[in-house]
Formats: sequence, structure tokens, C-alpha cells
Amino acid sequence: MSHDAVDVIRTKRDGGQLSPDQIDWVIDAYTRGDVAEEQMSALAMAILLRGMTRAEVARWTGAMIASGERMDFSALTRPTVDKHSTGGVGDKITLPLAPLVAVFDVAVPQLSGRGLGHTGGTLDKLESIPGWRAALSNTEMLAQLDDVGAVICQAGSGLAPADRKLYALRDVTGTVESIPLIASSIMSKKIAEGTGALVLDVKVGSGAFMKDLQDARELARTMVDLGTDAGVRTSALLTDMSTPLGLTAGNALEVRESVEVLAGGGPPDVVELTLALAREMLDAAGRPDADPAAALADGRAMDSWRAMIIAQGGDPDAPLPTARHTEYLLAPADGVVMEMDAYAVGVAAWRLGAGRARKEDPVQAAAGVELHAKPGALVRAGEPLMTLHTDTPERFTRAMAVLDDAVQLAPEGSRPARAGIVLDRIGS
Amino acid sequence: MSHDAVDVIRTKRDGGQLSPDQIDWVIDAYTRGDVAEEQMSALAMAILLRGMTRAEVARWTGAMIASGERMDFSALTRPTVDKHSTGGVGDKITLPLAPLVAVFDVAVPQLSGRGLGHTGGTLDKLESIPGWRAALSNTEMLAQLDDVGAVICQAGSGLAPADRKLYALRDVTGTVESIPLIASSIMSKKIAEGTGALVLDVKVGSGAFMKDLQDARELARTMVDLGTDAGVRTSALLTDMSTPLGLTAGNALEVRESVEVLAGGGPPDVVELTLALAREMLDAAGRPDADPAAALADGRAMDSWRAMIIAQGGDPDAPLPTARHTEYLLAPADGVVMEMDAYAVGVAAWRLGAGRARKEDPVQAAAGVELHAKPGALVRAGEPLMTLHTDTPERFTRAMAVLDDAVQLAPEGSRPARAGIVLDRIGS
Repeated sequence: MSHDAVDVIRTKRDGGQLSPDQIDWVIDAYTRGDVAEEQMSALAMAILLRGMTRAEVARWTGAMIASGERMDFSALTRPTVDKHSTGGVGDKITLPLAPLVAVFDVAVPQLSGRGLGHTGGTLDKLESIPGWRAALSNTEMLAQLDDVGAVICQAGSGLAPADRKLYALRDVTGTVESIPLIASSIMSKKIAEGTGALVLDVKVGSGAFMKDLQDARELARTMVDLGTDAGVRTSALLTDMSTPLGLTAGNALEVRESVEVLAGGGPPDVVELTLALAREMLDAAGRPDADPAAALADGRAMDSWRAMIIAQGGDPDAPLPTARHTEYLLAPADGVVMEMDAYAVGVAAWRLGAGRARKEDPVQAAAGVELHAKPGALVRAGEPLMTLHTDTPERFTRAMAVLDDAVQLAPEGSRPARAGIVLDRIGS
Repeated sequence: MSHDAVDVIRTKRDGGQLSPDQIDWVIDAYTRGDVAEEQMSALAMAILLRGMTRAEVARWTGAMIASGERMDFSALTRPTVDKHSTGGVGDKITLPLAPLVAVFDVAVPQLSGRGLGHTGGTLDKLESIPGWRAALSNTEMLAQLDDVGAVICQAGSGLAPADRKLYALRDVTGTVESIPLIASSIMSKKIAEGTGALVLDVKVGSGAFMKDLQDARELARTMVDLGTDAGVRTSALLTDMSTPLGLTAGNALEVRESVEVLAGGGPPDVVELTLALAREMLDAAGRPDADPAAALADGRAMDSWRAMIIAQGGDPDAPLPTARHTEYLLAPADGVVMEMDAYAVGVAAWRLGAGRARKEDPVQAAAGVELHAKPGALVRAGEPLMTLHTDTPERFTRAMAVLDDAVQLAPEGSRPARAGIVLDRIGS
């Protein structure tokens, strides 16, 4: 059935509910180019301001899935489980997590993206490993899932092409911040990918997309419902992103830290979140008795990581790139670190060259920020709080500028409030 | 100062007020093509749903004026006064009104448009007069205003080009129905045109853009404020558009009826509204003692009309085109006409060929609808209620279909409620 784009826009503009037929038509016509970019952007703004019902979001997601191909993991003997993070500063968790979960005879197909803005991209991080390649054919991906269990690669362009087009449009039209549009964008790709189970890591705090817990909870609930309705076993952890995860933000810096975790060490918050997500994934995959902490301690996770990197052409033993220039940010006074703002650290890493402003920009593998103290630490005036890394030293000034108010110190004896990394869990 | 389009969109999206600087920048950048169509449509939707303050609308209008040239009537010895109607079915009032007002040594520069959708365009109507031409240079226009006093012509493309671009965009993105955007669109052209005074005819009812009096009042108030703030003496009449004006809707049909009014006859509602608007215009132009009714009765208005038509190459004595095919709509029963729906009649005239669906379509000069009864008339079963005119008889079926419920009859002795044509007046 044919519709008129203006009628569809008006329906949502005036607070009405889009019919299943209108949704199917508008997504299909937009994918084909029959609904113009300026029409879709007006509709996206109307959706952002008017909202969508659960039924509308489900249909919208279904229509985006139907715009492209679906993958099929049914030939695998292992159960599949995927993890998706809404993005944060220093969020390298996918790197240790995927090989760790794969230890327990589970297939972990991590279709990942590149970074845009102040949050880094998993593929950018792994590309700092010499030889590693992000692009795999579907056949290569399936073979690696069967053989190694874990794969982290670029999503093919055939999955939810409507979402790719719509996401690029939302980015330039101020229509990103809509829970129904965010949820349907993420879930259309994950459902089309064909995973049997999915764990969502919904970040909350200054370094995350969602600044408050209430919005994050609503997003998590919307996504869990979408996954469940589509037959994917889905749950979500709401996790803290007011402070950067771990002690590094930047591509090679984060790989190094991930390898430390896989070797049984690493910063406690990264280990804590990796294990929490691993347990959630293993539970969803039917492995409730698996002990991921043991697999980090006894080297099985590291073996799995090495196999995964080698399978994609990478050399796990090659030295990682280091930056040509570094500079310290020093503590201005004695005191206890009360706060270390994730957003500021993310922007600093981005300005140092770790991220990109436009999607065609290159990134510097070695650029980023290394933290020497986290909230709760006692520091002395003149001690380094952070090391800034870059190959292009003219970037230091702008990176330092954003860090001016990033660290809050309090008199000795003070203690920051700390809620733990995992703030809440949303199940189906 | 440079801005980011996404920041401007977000400000309005989140319910904020756009700064003067943001407004100037976004209109200028849009006119130059640096703000993309899809960005402007998202902003237009945000404005539609969030509104604009009086200060924002004034600045927005000013920025659209600044996007192009301004005309200058200061060389004229006569005062200038213009009229603008928000559009209705059978609204031919400009045709008798402009020459009538010009009788009193007033210059009436009517920059008019073509029809789109169910309301006709003044230029389309006048083009049914053999030889008449709509396009005048600014020099020709000024000479005619000096000499004849009245001119009805096409607006040059130099006036408010931002508005032309934005209007075309709003038309396809469901963002027409916004009072701030409608008001600034109309007023930017009228202020740029340089008239000293302006009378607005804001239509209310089924055949008009504004269906209810409250919205129409708000639109009128917004436009009167914009004109007043820009130094244009502005007032508005709110007038009824639930029933077509007069007995005709269609290009040549409406010219014929206008000439009847100029000859001292014509349908009472057309005469009533022409005189009400003429008095308002003459008052605004400093001619409070003028007697327009006398000028209709004694032939001065007709002389002024003939001079105006001849000055633009038209032959006022040439026969007007008549349709090759006509068909009657008959009364289904005896009764009193309670309602004759303006919207249905407008759509029927449009479907018969009087209007266009896309702006590049031609129109039929002779097509349209002629009414044989208006609300209050007693009709007998089988008598003609309307005559439908077209050159392309395959159009009758679709035109008849929309008229099915257009006429409401009630038992003999009933009387329709009638409020008069002028419902309210908004002054500065």
C-alpha cells in the first residue's frame, strides 16, 4: 500500500500513533530514496518530541531489519551471545570479554563500530594491533565462531541499511537523543545479526550518552522489550560512566590494559565490569556454572584472546605503537581525588587524536590519556594525575584546556561516594 | 559569527529561545546552502512543536527580509496600502478591491501568487483575461502605481528568497501549519515589498487554512505585531470561509463575478467583504472619508479596473474563456440550504482543472464551480445546486465525488445561523 510522506509526518507531529502499514511504508520508501532526507528528518524530530508506543518501536525496528539481510548462526553447535555497550570513555570491555566468554564453548559474534566524538570505537582500538583486520566475510566470521568462538569484526553493510542511512541523518539534524530511535537503531542491527542472546551495557553518567539513571533505565527497558519480543534472550546492566573505565582512554593504550586484564591483572573496575557482563552472558547462553574469574586467572582467557587476534591476521606478540610525545597533567595541590570527569577525559583523548570528528577522519593508534589516580586516591601537589599521549604535539593545548576542571580534589581524609560499577539490572 | 546547525536545532528542540545571532546565522546559511534542507526541516518541525516568542518571530522575519532585496515606494506621491488574504475558496476579492481603493488616490501594490491545492491564485484568475501579463519589472510596476494606482503582479524572485526556499521545504515536510512560520513567511514578503500600510484578511472555516477562530486570531495578532514593529501600519479582519465567497470558484468564472461587482452588482457577500476591506485600507492610507460604495455604484471603480488591466496588456472587453463541458449537481430533495462546504467546493474546482497539484502544472482558465444557491436559499428536488465546468470531462466523476456531502439541506422554514462575513478585527 502506498502512503504520502506528509501524511505520515503529520500523524506523528499531531501526537498520533503510526500504523504498522505507515511504518513499513516509510522505512522502505526512505531506504529506496522515495522519502526524501528532509522528510525523514522532520519525522525524526516529530518522533523525538512526541515519542513512540512500544508497538510502534517494535514495528519500526522490524521494518529496519526488513530493509536488509539477516544473518544465521543456526549452523553453529555453540550457543551465541552478544554484548552491546551504549558507549563510554575508556570502555574497552569488549576486548577481554569476548575471548573470556568464548572459553566456555559459547560463540560471541561481536559486530562492532568505529568511534565518533568523545567515545572510542572497538575496531579502532583493535586496529592498533599490527596486522589485525576488521573486515571479514560472513563465511570467515562463521568459521571463526566455530573454531575460536570469539570474533570482533565490522558489521557488513547488508544489515539494516535503513538504520545506517537514518543514523547518518540523525547525527546532523539534532535527532539523535530519542529513546525510541536509539533503541530501534541498536536493536535492529543486533536482531538482524541473529544472536540467540544479548546483554546490553547501558552507560549512565557524564561520559555516557544518557546522563541520568531514569533515562538510562527507560532506554534499557525499551531495548530489552524489543529483544524479547523478537525472540532474543535479552537483559541489560546499567553501569556507571561518571569516571573513565580503567586507567586509559585511547586505542593502543586500551589494548594494553585489556591484555593486562586477560593476564589476570588490570584495574579493578575493568575486571569487575568484565566479570559482571561475562556472568550475565554465560547465564543467558546456558552456562550458569561457568567461572569466568578462574579463566582470567589460569590463562584460558589469554589463550582465547591470542587465538582470536591471530585468526584475524593480528600478531598478539607485536609491540603496540607508542606516542611520539607525552605531557603530564600535574596535581595542583595535595588532596583526595573526589571526581575525575569521564566526559572531559573522553574529549581530551579525542582532541589528542584518538577519535575522529568526521567519519572519514583517520585516528592515531597511540594517542590518548593515561590516568595515574582514580577517585579515592590521595595525591600530592606536583605529582602527575594523567599522562597525555599524541603524535602531534600541537594538540596538547586544546586537550589540556578541557581537563581544567576534570579533577576535583578534597582535603585528606575525604572519601568519594562510590556506588559500584553496576547500578541496576533490567531483565525480560 | 559562525554557529553549528545542530546546536541551533537542539536549542529549539529542547524548548529554548533562539538568540538573534542564531536566527540571523541559520537563515543566511540556509539561503546560501550551508545549512542543509534536512537540517532546516528538523528545525522547522521543532519550531512547529515548540513555538517561537514574539522576539524570535520578529528576528526570524527580519532575517528573511535581509536575505533579499527591499522595494522602495518612497518616490510615489500617493500613500501605499496592500492587502493580503490567507486564502480561501472563491476569494477573488483582490480583483475588485485593488482598483476600487486606487480610485481614492492611493497606490495599491498587490504582489500576488499562483494557486496550489484547493485555493485559487490571483494571478491564475487574471491570466484568463486575453493578453494580460503577470510579470512586470520594478520600473513598470512603479510607473503603473504612479499612473493607474493599482497593480496586481507577480512578486519578483529577489524578495525574501529564504522564504521561497523555506516555503517549498515546509510544503513537503509537514511543517506548514505553524503560526510563527506562516506569519513570518507572509510578513517577510510584505515588509520587503515596502508598503506603508497593510490590511490582512485572515480566513477562518472549512475552506481556509485556519479552521478555528482562536488559531486565526493568534495568527492575525502575530502578523499585526510583526507589521507594526517593522513600521508598517497593519490591521487584520478575521472573515468567514465556511462557505465559498460569492457564487463562483475558478479562474475565468471569478473574473466574471469580479467585473459584476465593479459594475455595481455581484453577490452580496463579495460586495460586503470588498467594501469592508476597502474601508480598512482607505482608513490605513489616510482616507477615512472616502466612500467606496459610491465608487462601485458610479463607475469609477470600473474605470480604474479597465485602466489596470490595459496597463498590463489585457483586453477588458475581450470575451472570457468558457468551458467546453458543463454538468449540473442537482438538489436531491426539497429544502433550505443550511451549509455549502467551502473546502469541498474548492477541491471540486481544483479537480475540474482550476488549480494545480504541483507548482509546474498548468491550470484551465474556464474550469470551476458555479453555485446556484447559497445558505438560506430554498431549493426544490431536481433543481441545479451547482454547475461544474471543465474542458476535460473525465474530471467530472472525481469532482462530483467530493461534493457528495458538501450541501446540507433542512426542512422548509429552517434558517442557517449566519454571523456575517467579518467575524472580528485585530488592530495594532
